Amino acid sequence: MPRHVNADDRRLDLADTALLIAGADGLDAVTIRRVAQRLGASTSAVTHYVEGRQELLLLAVRRAVDRRIVEGHEVIHGHSGLRAIEMLMEWATGGVGLEAQSAWLSLVAGARSSPDLREVLSTFNAWWDDAVQSACAAATADGDLALPVRLAADLITTVVDGLVLASFEDEAPLPAPRRDAVLRLAFDALRGDALEPEGTTR
Amino acid sequence: MPRHVNADDRRLDLADTALLIAGADGLDAVTIRRVAQRLGASTSAVTHYVEGRQELLLLAVRRAVDRRIVEGHEVIHGHSGLRAIEMLMEWATGGVGLEAQSAWLSLVAGARSSPDLREVLSTFNAWWDDAVQSACAAATADGDLALPVRLAADLITTVVDGLVLASFEDEAPLPAPRRDAVLRLAFDALRGDALEPEGTTR
Repeated sequence: MPRHVNADDRRLDLADTALLIAGADGLDAVTIRRVAQRLGASTSAVTHYVEGRQELLLLAVRRAVDRRIVEGHEVIHGHSGLRAIEMLMEWATGGVGLEAQSAWLSLVAGARSSPDLREVLSTFNAWWDDAVQSACAAATADGDLALPVRLAADLITTVVDGLVLASFEDEAPLPAPRRDAVLRLAFDALRGDALEPEGTTR
Repeated sequence: MPRHVNADDRRLDLADTALLIAGADGLDAVTIRRVAQRLGASTSAVTHYVEGRQELLLLAVRRAVDRRIVEGHEVIHGHSGLRAIEMLMEWATGGVGLEAQSAWLSLVAGARSSPDLREVLSTFNAWWDDAVQSACAAATADGDLALPVRLAADLITTVVDGLVLASFEDEAPLPAPRRDAVLRLAFDALRGDALEPEGTTR
């Protein structure tokens, strides 16, 4: 390893390497030794920057959540209101991939007993809540939203969370057409489509 | 311990004792030793019936899921159609309590890597899916359901799962009035209330 390297950069490298290993072989496979091997370094070169496996895992989880926030930003970049809501919902329920959803579930389950994980989770939630509420406020200003902002935001988060959790309850994720049909119902409720006069023609 | 006791009964006792301990001090506190102490027995009297801590935990999880199924049956007993759906949703999102929801989340997160947990989860899911679909079919027969049965069932499961997961993402569960407002939206979508002619008077 090069000397005099910035310690923060080095810790990011360790986190990225841990995520590569976790992506391939699961979080259980992430060890100081595996990370060192992958970097062609000694274990002591790794433990110079992290105290142990727990700190390494926490770095990796923080890194994964930071990346998700960046990804989410990119997904809604240049969009606002209902369109931003639609893109956020599609991304969070399908676009992020099953591995990321699985890591998410472990994070939520672990946050109950770990203040460190709770803090990482809160970082993401703060971003998510802000993104959803901003989009809802913009949709309201556009006259596109039939629900109060907080109820709309609660519905969006509930449906997204529900589709993520449902993916893991069964052997396989809900097939895309069934997931999309549920998203469509939520979206109709947000827009109050069913309240439009043409709704009465059924 | 009395001798010649039925081995299945004894294993149920062990599972119940493990659940008492888990309820008070969390799943991590469940050990062969703690269970033996609580029963006033030796650890070898416990390991006569279970191979080790893992089997003890699995017994406890199975027992908890069996109990939830019995409880769910009781909740909808004597009801059908929309009313049964409403009672199932309220029970699953609030009535079961936070500890049971937390245990559920751990079960779902663990089922990905444990075939034993996956099997327990499947037992519950089979019951849940059957209860929800039966209620939806009855509601359709009553003329109360505005959605196809499968879409209705997907919406119900998604909203219930979403409210459970959302409870753990934040520091505290969603306040009851906000949870109820989301349930109400889902319920309206099921009944197609918004499609009724009076919906156009807004």
